[in-house]
Amino acid sequence: MNNAMIAYILGSVLRIEGVLLLGPCAAAVWYRERVGWYYLCVAVICELCGWLLSCLRPKNQVFYLKEGCVATALSWLALSFFGGLPMYISGQIPGFVDSLFEAASGFTTTGATILPDVEHLARATLLWRSMTHWIGGMGILVFLLAIVPLSGGSNMNIMRAESPGPSVGKLVPKVRHTARILYLIYVGLTLIELILLLCGGMSFFESLNHSMATAGTGGFGVRNDSLTSYTPYIQWVVTIFMIMFGVNFNAYYFILFRQFRKAFGMEEVRCYLLIVAAAIGIVFLNVRPMYASGSEGFRHAAFQVSSIISTTGFSTVDFDMWPQTARTIMVLLMFIGACAGSTAGGMKVSRIVIGAKTVKKELAAYLHPKSIKKIRFEGKPVEHEVVRSINVYIITYAVVFAISVFFVSFNNCNLETNVTAVAATINNVGPGLAMVGPTLNYGHFSVFTKCVLIFDMIAGRLELFPLLMLFHPGIWKEAARSSRLQKKLHRDRNRA
Amino acid sequence: MNNAMIAYILGSVLRIEGVLLLGPCAAAVWYRERVGWYYLCVAVICELCGWLLSCLRPKNQVFYLKEGCVATALSWLALSFFGGLPMYISGQIPGFVDSLFEAASGFTTTGATILPDVEHLARATLLWRSMTHWIGGMGILVFLLAIVPLSGGSNMNIMRAESPGPSVGKLVPKVRHTARILYLIYVGLTLIELILLLCGGMSFFESLNHSMATAGTGGFGVRNDSLTSYTPYIQWVVTIFMIMFGVNFNAYYFILFRQFRKAFGMEEVRCYLLIVAAAIGIVFLNVRPMYASGSEGFRHAAFQVSSIISTTGFSTVDFDMWPQTARTIMVLLMFIGACAGSTAGGMKVSRIVIGAKTVKKELAAYLHPKSIKKIRFEGKPVEHEVVRSINVYIITYAVVFAISVFFVSFNNCNLETNVTAVAATINNVGPGLAMVGPTLNYGHFSVFTKCVLIFDMIAGRLELFPLLMLFHPGIWKEAARSSRLQKKLHRDRNRA
Repeated sequence: MNNAMIAYILGSVLRIEGVLLLGPCAAAVWYRERVGWYYLCVAVICELCGWLLSCLRPKNQVFYLKEGCVATALSWLALSFFGGLPMYISGQIPGFVDSLFEAASGFTTTGATILPDVEHLARATLLWRSMTHWIGGMGILVFLLAIVPLSGGSNMNIMRAESPGPSVGKLVPKVRHTARILYLIYVGLTLIELILLLCGGMSFFESLNHSMATAGTGGFGVRNDSLTSYTPYIQWVVTIFMIMFGVNFNAYYFILFRQFRKAFGMEEVRCYLLIVAAAIGIVFLNVRPMYASGSEGFRHAAFQVSSIISTTGFSTVDFDMWPQTARTIMVLLMFIGACAGSTAGGMKVSRIVIGAKTVKKELAAYLHPKSIKKIRFEGKPVEHEVVRSINVYIITYAVVFAISVFFVSFNNCNLETNVTAVAATINNVGPGLAMVGPTLNYGHFSVFTKCVLIFDMIAGRLELFPLLMLFHPGIWKEAARSSRLQKKLHRDRNRA
Repeated sequence: MNNAMIAYILGSVLRIEGVLLLGPCAAAVWYRERVGWYYLCVAVICELCGWLLSCLRPKNQVFYLKEGCVATALSWLALSFFGGLPMYISGQIPGFVDSLFEAASGFTTTGATILPDVEHLARATLLWRSMTHWIGGMGILVFLLAIVPLSGGSNMNIMRAESPGPSVGKLVPKVRHTARILYLIYVGLTLIELILLLCGGMSFFESLNHSMATAGTGGFGVRNDSLTSYTPYIQWVVTIFMIMFGVNFNAYYFILFRQFRKAFGMEEVRCYLLIVAAAIGIVFLNVRPMYASGSEGFRHAAFQVSSIISTTGFSTVDFDMWPQTARTIMVLLMFIGACAGSTAGGMKVSRIVIGAKTVKKELAAYLHPKSIKKIRFEGKPVEHEVVRSINVYIITYAVVFAISVFFVSFNNCNLETNVTAVAATINNVGPGLAMVGPTLNYGHFSVFTKCVLIFDMIAGRLELFPLLMLFHPGIWKEAARSSRLQKKLHRDRNRA
C-alpha cells in the first residue's frame, strides 16, 4: 500500500478545498457578512493540513486500484468534514453531524438538507452549498487530475474510483487531457445556463447558485420552496439543463468535435431520453386533473421527472401529494438515475439497459441453449468482465440498501419514509416521499440515522466499492504493514 | 418443440388434479354439503380434458429445458384455472378472477386471499384450499415424475423448471427415485404435525387443514383471525413446523439415512437458522413492551418471523401494528425466504449467501486483483455458471418487481401497500403491510391488479423464467413451426 501517495493526494485535495473556500469568503466580503471569517479560518486550516500531508512528493508513484479507492474515499470524507466545519463553527447549523450531513449532501450532489429554512442562511453559506454541488458533480479528484501531473497509472485508478458508470473510458489517450476536456464542457454548460437564467430576470447570485446546483445535479436551492416561486421560463430552463446534465458527457465531447452521428447514436443517451419522455408522458396523464391548464401540468410533470431522473432534486410542486402512479414513477426513476459519465447519481441507465439485455439473453438461452451471442451495447459486444461487474454492483447495491433501511427503521418513521430516505440518499437525489418529501427535510432523524444516510450518500456517489473498501480489515492491515516496512527501510538506510 | 409431449404432460397434470378434486367431494359427503357436486363436476371435466390431451403417448419423448419450462408454466396456469373453477361456479367466490386468484394463491403456496370472511366457506372449499397448498408446495410435476415413468432427460428438465433454488441436485441417481423420496419425507412430516396438532386438542378437520397449509408453507387458515385464537401449544407446534418446512429437504434425506454430520453441516440450513434466530431476537426486543409477558412477546415474535421467512403467512397478531423496526424486518424476511429445496418461496437463503459472498469476493479482488479464489458454498467451490444464474435471477427479479409495483400503483393505494403486496405475492408469502396486512385481504384491488399479482405469484413459485418464457415470442414461433412440421410429416406419410 502506497501510504505516502495516498497522503499526498489527500493533502492536495485539502489544498484545493482551501482555495475553494475563498469563494464564500469573497461573497461574504461583497455582502458584508461576518460569517466570512469562519470560512477564511477553515480555508487556512485546510491549507495547513493539506500542506502538511502533501509537502513530501512521494518518489514511488505506483498506485493500484485499491490505493485509488482508499484515496478517493478518504478524500471525500475529508472534503465533507472540512466542508461542513465553517457552517458548524459559525453557528449556521447547530449540530456537528448536521453540518457533516449538509456538506456530504452537497459534495455528493444529493441535495438533501437538514435545514427547515434556508432563506435565513448567510449568502456565503448559500454560495458554498451550491459550490459543493458543482465541485462534487464532476469530482474533485478528476479536477486534481486535470491540474496535477501524476504518473505510474495513478490517474486512471483514481478516475475509475471516482467516476460513475460501469466502465470508465478515456476520451483521449491521456487521462489528464480527458479530465480537462470534461471540465471544459462542464464549465461551458454551467455558463450557458447562468446566462439563460440571467436573461429570465433572475438575480446574478441566484442564477449562479442555481446553475451550479443544476450542473452538479445537486438540488440545494436558495429559497425554502425550491423553484416553486420562479417563472415558467426559469423552470423550463432548469428542466432542460437538468436533463442535459444527466447526459453522458461523451456526447458533448463528440458534439464539440463535430462528430454528430456518434453523439446522437449513443445508445445510452437515446435510452435515457426515451425513459424521460415516457415518464413525463405517464406522469402528465396521471397529474393532469390536478392543475388548471394542460401546459401547467406538463411543465410540472417535466420538471419533476427531469429533477428526479437526473437526481437533482429541485421541485416546483410537492410531488408527495401526487397520485400513486406518479409517485411510484418518481421512486422508480430515483433508482434508474441518468447516464454514466454524467454528474448524476442512481444506478445509471447503462447498467439498467445492460441488465435488461442480460435478462433477454437468458430467456433466449432457454430457447437456444447452444447459441453464444454476446450482449451488445453502444454497437460493441459487452465484455464479460463488465457484465460481471454490473451484476456484482447491483447485488452490493441491494445489500447496502437493505441494511440501510433496517438501520433507518430504528427511527420509527413509516416504511415509505425510510425506504425513500435511503433511496434518495444512496441515489444522490435529495427529496424522498412522506416525511422526507420535497417540502420537508431530514432534520428530524436521529444522529445515528443521519450517519447512516451520510454513508449512503458517499457510497452512492462513489458507486459503493471505494467506500466499502475502508471497512475491509485487509486494507488497514496492508496500510500498517507498508508503514512498518517504510520505517524499517528508513532505519536500515540510517544505519548504513 | 415437442408439442405432443407438452400436451401429454399437461393432460397428466389435469388428470391428477381431477383425482385430487375428489378430496373436497369426500369432505362434502361427510359434512353433507351440496357444494360437493360442483367439485365432482369439475373433477369430471378435468379428467375429460386430461384424457383428451394425454390419450396419445408421444413416441418422441426427447425434451429440452424450454419444453420443461413451457410444460410447467402451462400446467400451473391450468391448475389454477381448474382449481378455482369449483369455487366460482358454486358461488362461494363471486368473481372469476377472484377464484383464479384464490386458486393460484393456493397452488403457489402464497396464501393471499381475496375473501374477507373464510368461516362462511363450505368445509369442502376450506379443505380444497389447504390441499392446493400441499400439492403446490412440493410441486405437482414433481409428483408426476414420482408416478409416471418418463425418459430422455425429460424428468430432469421438468424438475429443474419446477423446483426452487439456484441448482437442482438429484439425491439419488434417478430423478424418479429422488421425487419419491422427497414426497415420502413431505408426507411423513405432514403426518407428524397432524398428530401433534391433534394432541393439542384441535379438531381433525382443522388439524388436517393446518398441517397441509404449513407443509406447503401456504398460509390459508380456516378462521378469519388465522391462528390468533388457538392455544400457545398449537402456535408453538405450527411455529416449529413452519421453520422445519423452510429447511432444505436434503437435510431430512441425510437424517433419514443417518448421515447426521452431513445434515447438520449444511451451510444453507445453518445460515437459515441463524437468520431466523437473529430476526426473532431483534423483533422480540422491539415488540416486547407491547405484550403483557415476555413469553407471550417471544411466542408472537417467533411465530411471525417463522411465518414470514418460511413464506407461510399465518399470523397470531397483526404485525402491521408493530413498531417500524419489526415491520422492516418482516419485509426484509419476505425477500430472503427460506432454503432452496424446501417448499418455501422468496429468493432463498442460498442465493442470498452466495450473493453476499460475491460481494465479499469483489472487495477482496480490489485488494488482491490477481488472486483467483472461487466462491465456496456447502464446502464446494461454486461453479461459475451457478453464480451467473443467481446474478441473472436477481436482476430479473428486480425488473419483474419494479414493473409489478408500477402496474399495481394504478390502484392508487399507498406505496407501502403496493410494494408489500407485490413482495408478498412474488415471494409467495401472503400477507403484506398496510392495506394488505394480516387482518386485511386482497379483495379491494382491481381486476387488473389481481391479474398482475396472479402473474407474480406463479412467476415467484416457478422462479420467474418458466413463466416468462410463455411471453417470449420465440416459443410460440417454435411451437407453430413444430406443429406445421408434424402435419406435413403426417400428410407425407399418408401419401406414401
